This record gives sequence, C-alpha cells and structure tokens, in this order.
Amino acid sequence: MLRDRFSAPLDQAAAALSSSVVEDRALLGVDLWESIVHARMLGATGIIPKASAGRIVAGLRAIAREAAAGRFLLDPLHEDVHLNVEAELTRRIGPDGERLHTARSRNDQVATDLALALRESLLGLEGASARVSSSLLGVARSPQGRTVVDGWTHTQPAQRLYWAQILGTHALRFVRDAERFRRIRERIDASPLGSGAIAGTSLPVDRRATARALGFARATASSLDAVSDRDSGTDALYACSVTLLHASSLAEEFVLGSLPGVDRVRLSDRFVTTSSLMPHKRNPDLAELVRAESGPAIGRLVSHLAVLKGLPVGYQRDLQLGKPIVFEGVVRTRLALEVLAGMAAEASYRTPPVSDASTGSVELADALVRAGVPFRTAHRRVGLWLSKREKTTSRAAPIRDSEMQAEFPELPRAFRFPGADEEPERRTSSGGSSWRSVATLLDEVDRRRRQSESATSREVARLQRLRRGAGIPERLFA
Amino acid sequence: MLRDRFSAPLDQAAAALSSSVVEDRALLGVDLWESIVHARMLGATGIIPKASAGRIVAGLRAIAREAAAGRFLLDPLHEDVHLNVEAELTRRIGPDGERLHTARSRNDQVATDLALALRESLLGLEGASARVSSSLLGVARSPQGRTVVDGWTHTQPAQRLYWAQILGTHALRFVRDAERFRRIRERIDASPLGSGAIAGTSLPVDRRATARALGFARATASSLDAVSDRDSGTDALYACSVTLLHASSLAEEFVLGSLPGVDRVRLSDRFVTTSSLMPHKRNPDLAELVRAESGPAIGRLVSHLAVLKGLPVGYQRDLQLGKPIVFEGVVRTRLALEVLAGMAAEASYRTPPVSDASTGSVELADALVRAGVPFRTAHRRVGLWLSKREKTTSRAAPIRDSEMQAEFPELPRAFRFPGADEEPERRTSSGGSSWRSVATLLDEVDRRRRQSESATSREVARLQRLRRGAGIPERLFA
Amino acid sequence: MLRDRFSAPLDQAAAALSSSVVEDRALLGVDLWESIVHARMLGATGIIPKASAGRIVAGLRAIAREAAAGRFLLDPLHEDVHLNVEAELTRRIGPDGERLHTARSRNDQVATDLALALRESLLGLEGASARVSSSLLGVARSPQGRTVVDGWTHTQPAQRLYWAQILGTHALRFVRDAERFRRIRERIDASPLGSGAIAGTSLPVDRRATARALGFARATASSLDAVSDRDSGTDALYACSVTLLHASSLAEEFVLGSLPGVDRVRLSDRFVTTSSLMPHKRNPDLAELVRAESGPAIGRLVSHLAVLKGLPVGYQRDLQLGKPIVFEGVVRTRLALEVLAGMAAEASYRTPPVSDASTGSVELADALVRAGVPFRTAHRRVGLWLSKREKTTSRAAPIRDSEMQAEFPELPRAFRFPGADEEPERRTSSGGSSWRSVATLLDEVDRRRRQSESATSREVARLQRLRRGAGIPERLFA
Amino acid sequence: MLRDRFSAPLDQAAAALSSSVVEDRALLGVDLWESIVHARMLGATGIIPKASAGRIVAGLRAIAREAAAGRFLLDPLHEDVHLNVEAELTRRIGPDGERLHTARSRNDQVATDLALALRESLLGLEGASARVSSSLLGVARSPQGRTVVDGWTHTQPAQRLYWAQILGTHALRFVRDAERFRRIRERIDASPLGSGAIAGTSLPVDRRATARALGFARATASSLDAVSDRDSGTDALYACSVTLLHASSLAEEFVLGSLPGVDRVRLSDRFVTTSSLMPHKRNPDLAELVRAESGPAIGRLVSHLAVLKGLPVGYQRDLQLGKPIVFEGVVRTRLALEVLAGMAAEASYRTPPVSDASTGSVELADALVRAGVPFRTAHRRVGLWLSKREKTTSRAAPIRDSEMQAEFPELPRAFRFPGADEEPERRTSSGGSSWRSVATLLDEVDRRRRQSESATSREVARLQRLRRGAGIPERLFA
Repeated sequence: MLRDRFSAPLDQAAAALSSSVVEDRALLGVDLWESIVHARMLGATGIIPKASAGRIVAGLRAIAREAAAGRFLLDPLHEDVHLNVEAELTRRIGPDGERLHTARSRNDQVATDLALALRESLLGLEGASARVSSSLLGVARSPQGRTVVDGWTHTQPAQRLYWAQILGTHALRFVRDAERFRRIRERIDASPLGSGAIAGTSLPVDRRATARALGFARATASSLDAVSDRDSGTDALYACSVTLLHASSLAEEFVLGSLPGVDRVRLSDRFVTTSSLMPHKRNPDLAELVRAESGPAIGRLVSHLAVLKGLPVGYQRDLQLGKPIVFEGVVRTRLALEVLAGMAAEASYRTPPVSDASTGSVELADALVRAGVPFRTAHRRVGLWLSKREKTTSRAAPIRDSEMQAEFPELPRAFRFPGADEEPERRTSSGGSSWRSVATLLDEVDRRRRQSESATSREVARLQRLRRGAGIPERLFA
Repeated sequence: MLRDRFSAPLDQAAAALSSSVVEDRALLGVDLWESIVHARMLGATGIIPKASAGRIVAGLRAIAREAAAGRFLLDPLHEDVHLNVEAELTRRIGPDGERLHTARSRNDQVATDLALALRESLLGLEGASARVSSSLLGVARSPQGRTVVDGWTHTQPAQRLYWAQILGTHALRFVRDAERFRRIRERIDASPLGSGAIAGTSLPVDRRATARALGFARATASSLDAVSDRDSGTDALYACSVTLLHASSLAEEFVLGSLPGVDRVRLSDRFVTTSSLMPHKRNPDLAELVRAESGPAIGRLVSHLAVLKGLPVGYQRDLQLGKPIVFEGVVRTRLALEVLAGMAAEASYRTPPVSDASTGSVELADALVRAGVPFRTAHRRVGLWLSKREKTTSRAAPIRDSEMQAEFPELPRAFRFPGADEEPERRTSSGGSSWRSVATLLDEVDRRRRQSESATSREVARLQRLRRGAGIPERLFA
Repeated sequence: MLRDRFSAPLDQAAAALSSSVVEDRALLGVDLWESIVHARMLGATGIIPKASAGRIVAGLRAIAREAAAGRFLLDPLHEDVHLNVEAELTRRIGPDGERLHTARSRNDQVATDLALALRESLLGLEGASARVSSSLLGVARSPQGRTVVDGWTHTQPAQRLYWAQILGTHALRFVRDAERFRRIRERIDASPLGSGAIAGTSLPVDRRATARALGFARATASSLDAVSDRDSGTDALYACSVTLLHASSLAEEFVLGSLPGVDRVRLSDRFVTTSSLMPHKRNPDLAELVRAESGPAIGRLVSHLAVLKGLPVGYQRDLQLGKPIVFEGVVRTRLALEVLAGMAAEASYRTPPVSDASTGSVELADALVRAGVPFRTAHRRVGLWLSKREKTTSRAAPIRDSEMQAEFPELPRAFRFPGADEEPERRTSSGGSSWRSVATLLDEVDRRRRQSESATSREVARLQRLRRGAGIPERLFA
Repeated sequence: MLRDRFSAPLDQAAAALSSSVVEDRALLGVDLWESIVHARMLGATGIIPKASAGRIVAGLRAIAREAAAGRFLLDPLHEDVHLNVEAELTRRIGPDGERLHTARSRNDQVATDLALALRESLLGLEGASARVSSSLLGVARSPQGRTVVDGWTHTQPAQRLYWAQILGTHALRFVRDAERFRRIRERIDASPLGSGAIAGTSLPVDRRATARALGFARATASSLDAVSDRDSGTDALYACSVTLLHASSLAEEFVLGSLPGVDRVRLSDRFVTTSSLMPHKRNPDLAELVRAESGPAIGRLVSHLAVLKGLPVGYQRDLQLGKPIVFEGVVRTRLALEVLAGMAAEASYRTPPVSDASTGSVELADALVRAGVPFRTAHRRVGLWLSKREKTTSRAAPIRDSEMQAEFPELPRAFRFPGADEEPERRTSSGGSSWRSVATLLDEVDRRRRQSESATSREVARLQRLRRGAGIPERLFA
C-alpha cells in the first residue's frame, strides 16, 4: 500500500474494508493491456527512455503469459490489481518498473480498465441475449410453434394463440435486450487514459494514440468527468435488470406451464431436479432460479445508484464499491441467460385439453358489430349469455352454433363460433394472432437477431486484433 | 365499472384499490386524441357507420374543449379515464357512444395512451436537462468561469481547476442526460393500437393509419408484446434516476460550497430560506431538496421493476401500478431540474483563500521525471518532503522555490512550483485543466446542447401539427 | 413563507419543489393537537401570559372543528401545514397568534407531528393485519378447512395438506406482522417537543408535561437526535414491505388457484372483474393488485433509506421528502390488507381432482426405513420405481398396494400407500400436517391475534381519552 | 447431485447457476452441529439403530475437526454443503452415512442452518454496534467532549454544541442498532428441524429435544411456515441498512470535518491514505468507504425482498438466492462497524475558529419573549437586524452587546449575547445542549450499551456450552 507519507500502518480492519483484490481479478487482463499501451506511449513520446519502455512492455507481457496460465495470483498485501502488477513488474525488471506509473493516476487507470472490462462484458451479454432469442425462434419455427394454446391475461385463458406467437414475443424482447446492451457498449467510446487524478498532466502524453490502441474512438473531453463518471456501469446494471425481468417472465411461463393441470410445458430432464426427501418430485428448480435472479439484479442496480448519490464531482473512494457490483451483475446475468437458452430449446410445448371453450367470445361480439349492433351492447349481451350458460354447462364444453344462433338471431347464418384451434386465424389484423402475422414477427425477430450477432462478432474480432498487436494473450479475456 | 357479468357489486375497498382515476388525469389529453384517431379509422374502414364516427369525433372534441378549460373532471364512479370518457361521450351523443370501443381493448388503449404520454414527458425532460446545461455553460463562459478553485478528490483539495471545468463537466452530464431521454423517446415509435386484448382483432382495422395519425413510425409487431411491454416506462424512470443523481452531485457542490469556511459558492436569495426558530439562518434548502429527490427516483425505479418481476407474458393487472410511478417520476424530475437550472444560473462562484498550497505536487514530481527520476521515486520523495514540511508550516503557506530547490537539487533552474492560479495552465494534456482544453470542452457541450434542443423542438412542432389535425386543443398537453 | 431576511421572493419552481402542503393534510389533526398541548404548557409555565395561551387554545380548537368538518383547507401560499395553522390562528385571534411558536422550532414540531401520526397509522396497520388473520382463521376453522389439497413445493404437488394448514400458515404470518407493527409503535415513546432546532431552548419549557399530554412515556434524551431521527418511519416502511410480501404470497395463491386446470380457489364476484373487450373473462384483478402492491412497498422503503444516506447529523431539508413516502406507504398497505381480508373470507377453497397420486412417496420410504433400509437407499429405490411407473401409468392413477408390495417385499403387510385424503394424518410430528397439529397451530394464531387486537384497542382508547382532554375532535383522526 | 430419477445429467450452466457451494462455506459449522443433534435424536428415539447413530456422530465430529483445521473443503461436484457433508460421512463410515438424512428434508435442514447461522451473525453485529457506541462515548467523556463546536442544520452553522452531544447522539443510534439486532435475534427462537419438506414426518421424531439441544426455546408451529419463512433474514438485512445509514452519517461527519476550512476533525494516520499520483494527499478513504457501504446495504435488502415477491407458500428454489445476500450483508456491515469504531476512537475533535458569531440569535429572541414581545415579532426583528449587520460586518465578527442593546432597547440590562463557548449552557431544557443534559444523555447511552453487551455475552456463553455438549469445535464459529 502507498503509505510513504504516514508513520502508522493502516488499521487492520481498514485494510480489509479497502482491499479490492478479490474483485480486481476480473480486471487483470485489461489492466495489463492498458499498461502495455501506456508504457509504449511513454516510450514513443520520450516521457521515459525508449529502452525503459521496452523493458516494461516485455515485463508486462511476461506477467500476462503467467496470468493466462493461471500462475499470477493477486497478493492481498498489495491492495488492488494495479499495485500488484506494478510490484511484480518491479520485482522482475528492477527500477524501470518505477517508471510505469508516470503521467498516470490510479483514477484514470481504473476508469480506463472499467471501460475496457465493461465493453468486454457487454459483448458477452449481447451474445447471450441473442442466443435466448435464437433458441426461442428455433422452437417457434418448428412444428411445435404451430400448435395452439391459451393466451393468458390476468393468468386466465383469454384468447387462443399459436405457441409461436408467445415464444416469438419472448424472443423479440431478448433481441431488444441485445440491442440495448449494444447501444450501451457503443457509447463506451472515449478513453479516460491521460486524465490523471482529475486534471490531466503536464507531461506530453499522446492521448489519441493510447485511445486508438485500446480501441476507443477518441479521448475523453474533461479529465474531471473521465475519472468520476460511472454511468456506463449503471447503464449496464439497468440493462441486466430489464433483461432478467424478461427472463423471469419466460421462467414463470415454464414454472406455471409445468404445473399438473396446466401441463403446457414439459422441461427436459437436464433442467429439473428432484427432492432430497420426496422421491416422486420433478422440480423446475432452474426456472425458479432464473426467475429469482431478477431480484438481486434490481438490488445491484440500487446498490450502485445509491453509492453515487450526493457525491460531489471528482474521484471519491465510494466509487470503488461499484466494481464488484457490476462484475457480479454481468456474470450472473450471463449465466442465467445461458441456462434459459438451453431450457427453452429443450422444453416441449404442448396443447393441453381446452379448459375454456368461450375464448372466442370477442369474435362473436365482432360478428354482432358487423350486423350493426354497437360494440358495448354486443359485449354486454355476450357476457350475460355466457354467464347464464356457465350455470348449467362447464366452461370447457364446446359452444354449439345452434345455441349461439338461438341467442343471437341477428347473426349471419355463415358465422360459426371459432373452434379452439381456428381462433388464431380469425384475428386477421397485422401484428395479431394469425399465422401470417406471426410469421412476419418471427422474420423481424430473426433479422434483428442476425444483425445483432454480426455486430457483436465484428467488434470481438476488432478487439482481438488490437490485443494481438499489444502482444497480450487472448485467453485472459475468455 | 364493467360488471355486467357479475351479480354482486365490487367490494368497496376493492374499488378503492383498483381505481386509477387520480393518476389517470395525466392521460386525459392523450386518451382523447387516441380515441378521436381510433373513431375516425372505424368510420373510414366502414367498421362503424361513417355518420356514427362523425358524431363520436365531434363529441370527443367537445369533451376535449371542456377538459382544456378545466371543466371535465374524472368521476371515481367510473374506475379510470377510459370509462369516464366513454360514459361522458354516451351521455352526450347517445347510443353511438357505445360504438367507440369497437375493435379496441383497454389493454391496447392503455398501452397507446402510455406511449403517447411518455413521449410527451420525455420531450419535457430533454428540454429541462438541456436547460440545466445551458445555465451552467452561461456561467462557465462568463468571467466567473475563469477564476481558479480547488478541484477535489475525496472531498479534499487535489489540484486547482478553473470553475469553468467544474461547471462544464456538470453541464456535459446534463447534455448526456438530455440525449439519453431523447434516445428513449425515439424508441417509442410503434403504435400498440389495434392489438386488442392480446391477439389483435377480426375486424378490418387500419393500424397503419392510426399509427401515422398518432405520430408513430409503425404499428407494433406482436399484439401480445404490445399490451404487456412496459420497458419504455422503466427506461424513463432509470434515466430520471441517473439525471437526478447528476443533479444530486451538483446540489452537493452547492451545499458544501456554501459551508462557512469553504465559501466557494453563494446561492442567490431566491434559492435559500431561513429557519422558523433561528433568525440568523440562510439555508440552502433547495439544494438539499434537489439532492434528496435522487432518493425517491431510485425508489420509483425499484417500484416499477419489482412490479414487473415474474409476470407471465400477456396483460396482468399488476401493470396498472406502473402508471402513477412513471408520472410522478417525470413530474418530480422536471421540477428538480427547473429549480437547479435557476439555482446554477444565479449562484455566484468564488475563489476562497488557498487552504493547501501544495496542490501542484504532481507538477513537481513530473519535473523530477523530466530530470530522469523514475516517477515512483519522485512521488515518494515529494511526499516525504511535504510531510516533513507540514510539521512546521501550515499547508496554506505558499511553497517558496528556494526551499523546493534545496530539497531537489536535480530540478532545472527554470522550474518553479506552480502558484495557485497558474496551476491549471501547467497541465497541458488534452481534456485537462488548461483553458484551451476547457474551451474545447465548453464548445463540445454547447454543440451537443444545441443539437439536443433543436431535435426536441422539431418533435414538439411535429406533434402539435398532428394534434391540430385531430382537432384537439394544445392546452391539454401543456 | 418565512422570508423576512431576504429581499428577493423565492423562485417559483423552488416554491413548488419545497411545498409540502399536499402531503401535510395527513398531519393536520396531530399538528393541532400538538399545538394545543404546547400552548397550554407555555401558559402553565408562564413563558407566555396565561390569557394569551387561553386564546391560542380556543383558536386552535375552533380551527380543529372547522377541519373536522372539512372546511379548513391548506393554502399553498403557506408552504406547509404548520405555517397554515399559525397564519389562520393569527387571522382569528390577532397578535397572540404570534406567540404560539415560542420555544419551538419547526424541527421539533415536525418530529413530534410525525411521531404522533405514525403512532396512529401503526395502530391502523396492526388492526388491518389482524383482520386478515381473522378472515383466514374463520375459513380454516370452517368445514372448508378440513378438506385436503396438494401442498406445493417448487409450485409442484409435494405432499397433501389440509387447507386449514395453508390458511393457518398465512394467518400466522399476518399475526406476526401485526406484532411487528406493534413493536415499532411501542418504541415511539419519547416526545421530541422542546428540542428546538437542534439544541433545546433557554426558555423554561416543561417537556415532561407535553410528553405526558401527548401520550408519550418520556421526552427524548438528545435534542440533536430528536429532530433528525427518522428511524421509526423507515421501520414502518420496512414492516409494510414485509407485510405486503406476505400479502403477495397469499394473492399468488389466489391467482394460481383460480387458473382453470388448477381450480382450487374460486374468488367471490365481489373481488373479480371482467374485460372491456372479452365478455367471457372473470379476472382476479384484485388479487393481482394486492400482489403488485409489494413492488411499490419495496420502492418506498428504498426511497426513504436513500434519502437518509450520507446526511450529517442535525436537521437537513432532505428529510422533508420522507413524509409523503411514509404516508403513502401506510395508506396503500392498509387498503391492500382490507381488500385481502375480504377476498380471503369470501373465497371458496376447493379440492380439485388429484393430479399426482404419488405424493405419499415419503411415507413409503419411511416405512422402508422402519423395516431397516437406510433412508438414502429407500429414497433411491422409491424414486426409480416411480420413474419407471410413470412411463406406463399416469401420475394421477392411484397407486395400488399390490404393485407397491411387489416392488418392496420387505414392507410389513399392514402398510398401505396413503390415499390422497389420508395423507395429512400420516405425518404425526408436531407442527406437521395432522389435524391435531393444525388445530394447535390455529389455536396459537388465534391467541396471538386476540392479544394483538386487545393491545391495539387499549391504545386506541388511551389516545382518545387524551385527545378528548385536549378538546380536539376525534373525527380528525378517523 | 440427487438425480436418481433422471436419465440425463444436469446441464452444465444449470449446475453452475444452482450451485451454492461457495456461499455455503458459511454454513459448514452450523450444518455439522445440526446434523450431530439430529443423528443423536434419531438414535435416542430408535428411528435408526443406536449404534448407527453413534457412528454417524463420531464421523461428523471428525469432519468438524478437519473443518476447524481448514482441511475440509467443499467440492462443487456436490451442489451444496449438505450433500458434501453426507458424501464425506458416507465415505468415512460407510452405509450408516445413508441413514443421516432420515426424517429430514433439505428444506427443514436449510431453514435450521440459516436460523443458527443468523443467530450467530446477529450476536456479532450486536457486539460491533455496541463497540462503535463505546468508542464514541470514550471520546465524549474525554476532555475533547467538553469543547464547543457548531451544531449544523442544513449543513450550516445553527447553534453551538458540545462535541459530546454530537458524539453522544451518534452513540445513542448505535446502541439502538445493537438493541434492534438483539430483538431480531431473540425472535429466532423456534427450531424448524423436523418440519420435513413442508408437512412434517411420519417417523416419531422428538422435535422438542433437537430444539433444546440447538438452543431454541421451542419447535415451530407450522411445518409449511418453517421451511419457507425468511423474515428473519430480511429483518437482519433491514437492520444492517439502518445501522449502515447511521454509519454513513458519522462517516460524513468525518469527511466534511476533514475538509480544509472546516477543520473540525482530524483522522488518525491509521485511517487515511494518500494518492498514487498526488504526493500531498491525505484522504479520508476509510470514511468514504464506510459511507458508501450503506448503498449496497440498501441494495441487498432490495435483492432479498424482491426475491420473495409473489412466491406462493411452500419451499421455492428462489429462496436459495437469499443465502449469499444475507451472509455478505452481515460480513460487510460488521467490517464497516469495526473500522468505524477504530476511526472514531482515534480521531481528534477540534474547535475551529468561529465562522458565524450569530448562532446565539434564538437566545436573543427568547430574551425579547421574556420581555413580552411575541415570538414571531422577535424572530422577525432579530432576523432583519442580522441581515442589515451582515452588509457591513463579517458573520464571524463577535456581536458586541452595545450594538445589540441599541437595536433592542427593551432587553434587560443583564442580558448578554451568548459567546461562542457559553452558548450550550444557555439552553437549559432537558435533552438540550447544556452539560447537565449531555451528561444525562451519555449516562443513558452507557447504561444501555452495557445492558446490550452483557446480554450478548450471556448468549454467546450459552451457545458455547451447547456446542461443547455436541462435541463441536468452537473454532468453526469464530
């Protein structure tokens, strides 16, 4: 720890509270990359001797190789990843190691590392969201997608839909999530490096060069902003929350659909567990866990936002607490999405027996409208008729056209109450339940998913090229 | 309340819990607009007789005029704004009123109303954020901006900055906030109208026509998604949280800056209050209130996210609770920003006496680096020297070049320890504290602010044209 | 507004942001009570002339009568309830009105008002929680309680239970909630009045007397703490969150139980609604709304906690934002509980057809344990047998003893696989599913519910006596 | 993993998502204790052979010794701590290991473990909160406590106070926090063990015996509640939030007090750090970190509450996510409190030069009240006088009695405007700023602190006796 100025050592509990060695493991790769780029620039501009720069870069690459092989462990004695790297470098190459931190503060260094790490994480999240979409699309376009099932409102049978519309709607959300992650990533385009503590530096750094080498479009415009802005971290946590809420909705679909009596989904054996006590159980544990992950996702967002509250501009140590929250958020979200992608692909989607035969009631009211009855009147008459009918007949019993015609003599002869499987095709409006609309939906989702995936791949390839140029092993970023 | 099917009336507490009449006042304007557009389409497509459509439109316009004059009040007897409008319409024009709700569900209606209302609110927020920027820029470019003050890290004097960099950094954040609000608004581009309850409709609606008339680029692609998606509401609440956190940071600047002993800001009389007991008080209450608003902003975001957790796809009544949260969030955020814009513009920004003369310590270390000393060594030596010096001299006492040169003989003769006001110019790196960098920053902020404001104005004008076309008084949207 | 010291009027947006007139309506009754008590003490101690005190008290009582009749409205011109009352008092009785605020600050006044209002609210919440318990107990002890239904784990049939145990378990939670509200109320036992702004007063106030008259056990021990402590507000919001989470669990029971195919609950017509479009719908809207209320409950807790973050000790204006959050929280929680109490009492609880006949699997494994088989082996064997069986037989098909005995020859002849309705009695452990255990549970819940209700009533009566003594109409507290 | 029933292995990402091996390390000690107690009961009741029970207990004790020595590591292959222990036991003692889980489900086991672990954690938190109080009391009663400093409202000088009142007020809050933790702990008094999955067991378990052996007052009353109730976890997280908000307030006192110009606190070298770039810095990092910890504390509470939302009664896998949140919350809170206790004890508390000489303004107004002037008039006159005075004189300039008397001729001759150090004694009301009141406050805090600490110690000793009886090494609970 940097305590040259102080006579007393740091209090022990204080050292524990201020240490970030555990969470900093996630920053090791980007910290080495950023340090290599920084050292090269120091050499190129003559801020430090070229030979020193060369030795620093070689030393950092050696550490990177060790790290990629899992052999470089962070020592809690050195507070954080940055001091660990510097200490190891100096141990290896001697006094030149003391030149690495020239024209740099931990403030701009941390900000740069976080930007690099977050960019990486967001690429992973884009991919994972798109994969859930992909899984769902796969099922929607399979024969299972053409089967018909109750669409629910208020968790009650409302109107019949193709399974493909339900799955396609979920898929659409995950595509939007992938796009949201991408938009956040694309705004991480300015390099904080060279911003110093808050005010820049008097040494002739070349910020444009380091920005370019690290894959940023430009250097940040205010040093004061560069070191204290944490908006992309909260943006990412927010996007994780929204995505996991979408995941919780799909997971709930699986939990409820697996309930005996509902029976519209059967999860594969690879995504269920049994009980330690009850040998007959077949539990949708994984769907429950995915659903539950939305809780901590909201909590993490709160944690990070609350940390930022009321801080004056300029670096405050409070910001340190943001790091583990963001990393944990990203990791858990990605894991949940991966589970969901598998679960969705392997589940089977069923058509249980019809429990309510009257879900075509709107089409009946619409037919009355065509016959000139004001809608509100039609709605009232159909409602009362169904209420009366329920008293003597089960809701599940199919509605015979004859009983309907007896009640509504103004109906044209040709009108038939929609059968359970015919219903979706009756609603012909665009964006609605007919197969034509559903196919259009699936095509749109697929188009956007492909666009998203190819943008992600392009960026991954670009960054790999840059890292190859810096001589840093790709394995550190896997 | 629509209870035709049920014998018993709704429980009284249940009616109170389910009523949304109070919060729905915010929807009255957009609901009338949407209903006029819907009725016209019903007439144009022949779904209802043209003459009926004409009477409905005339009736709705009459209600709109009453409402704009503050004479149409929502009656709690009719659960929500939609049933209030329909009841009043039917009272005015008779049975044709019963045709208005043809080919529409409250589900797609609410979703459309929310999209319209949110679009309006976001325009207001874009404007208010940009105005805070504008205020700050005005001060930054005034002579006050050129005065020098401590930049803080850890709420301790770190390095000297121009006030203009501090204010410009805050301004940059509010411009980004305006842009974030705008991006959210631009994604509200698809009309839910015509999605029915969840599955579309069998009547030949023209969704493209209603979308166009309401200013949307297109109709939504899945009816199921259209009625249950609330992402733009949470997006808006998130953006409000971030903006209010930025506001809390600026407000904290004002609170701390007003503290006797710190004395770097003096708020104008129009933004301070006194105490009911202590006649000598001059309190920065408004800055405190702005700071505090970030708390409920986070809370509202949580409220909305938590409501959505675990809901299966399709409309659930839970969604109703989102409405008041979003409206309240938007209103409070806008109010806080308006206060902040005024407070920032009218405050005076001062240069208190220097409390720490050693804030140029990095420039000294950098000079040693230029003389060949490794940075870490230079840092250590400067630190120990300052520690020693503090034991006999106050931190506020200016550092004489002679004492410095005695300690660091390798320094070039020409090097002078930076005086408090010279410091910002010493750091010449781009994005740093020099006036050249600060001016570039202010120009960038100003350019983006103007861009943002003109996009906002264009959209406001476009929507006004559409509403004029629908014959709906602009006053309902003020 | 108190602006004597300042030349300029408060900025208009600033006045809107700082006004608390709307939320302060909830404080009117307690503010008048507290002011009457304060004025009497000022007279009794001779701090102001006895005659002045008499006129003030008479004036305040007159305002209280107006207020109870709904004729005293707060004027937004006077910032808050306190300044409204003082202005009206002075308008009525002249200069003596200017003596009311002697030896008092708004800081201790607000703290006292909040304590009084919160005590009142908590009494209401104790009662409402106990009433939900009461409703549930009523059903549990009725014949419906003795019917048997699946107990779920992982929302899958696990083991059969009496409806009474499920309902009794929910009832137990609401009793605990009532007790939690009570404990919070009982800790609001110290009067802040007389604490001044932060430091007490030089006038010879009698804090013990005012504390006693307002029903507190004592006066607060630190004036600095008294004006800034908001812990009981957050305690209340936390307790509301927990209670509404319990409510969300019971509501979910109703939503899922109403799903066709599950069919274990039928809500009464007074707690369901239909759809504006689909005439056949019967929606558990109220259960959904109750469930959803837990979202904003968490959000409000966050709002209040986040407001408090990082405030130095002493009154800060930020605290003002706590008021509306707490009031709204209390009102919505109480409303939701009232709806729930009615809904639970009027629902019918059914026994749908058995969907899984193997829920007695543990009893089979236990029988093998009794026969000497290690449990883990027994568990494995039963599990594999049931898996095999599922391949040819539906889970719903009753398990014949002969097939079981063929598989497990070591079973004693007498052992029979438990039938669906016999299951609860098989598990004889205390606290378990047998009727004996359930009856004990219901008795315990009932005992604690009665205790809770009688503590609530005693306190209500005590406070009414005190208010009668102050001459303040009870209607202001209804 | 228990997958006997299923043909396919669990999906790999699913296994990662569902594993709780990492967080379960915190449960190892209590899990072994609970298993020993359970096994003994199984033997004593004859549910399993006595000899088997003996071997199980011996095996578990051996594992406990290994664990205490840090040599028993959890293997991720076995999902959680429970399956790890059972696997290791069976490896050691053979088939008898398969008898341990008789008459027990993971559901009641986890609930019991959590209760035991939380009880332990709460004891730690009680102690840590009391220690912060103790530190503060130590300073308050030292000579530093008698020095006078500005009391702030709105972060502006309000009225002068003894440092002892400020510190004693903070100390009072931490005592209340200790008491809150204790109340939560005391309500964890019922043993879930023997509740099975949700419904109890058919085997003749002795729940009273296991409850007693584990230090509970009784067994839980409903098996269904026992396995799904997580209220004490949220209670603990809430109490952590409140305590850390109190900590954030004290930390803010340190951050602001360290600001040059304010200069009322100087932190010891053991609780400050310097900068990696700026050698002159002396940063209150630890105070910032303590302040920041309140953010994640709120977030964790949200995480846990949101996980619980909408879960039907009965065990759901969602509950698993609560574990790591609670453990992390407890650990971070305790660490922050320990840092704060040290920081508070070692800081020095100063009296900076007076920056506002008019903080005695209320005493002047009070003197006018004594002379018969209505308070509101007195307040107005004093306010205007001070405003006028400010235009020509610095606020810091002492107020001469002659200028005061010229303005307020009705003042009695004897009245003198209070000097900065005399002020606290002027306010003689109980609970106020006079030393007499402050001494009473400190005594009360001390009395409650001692009470709290001795209750904590008694409970620690009681639990140690019980664990000694079970033959489980105390080191596992340190």
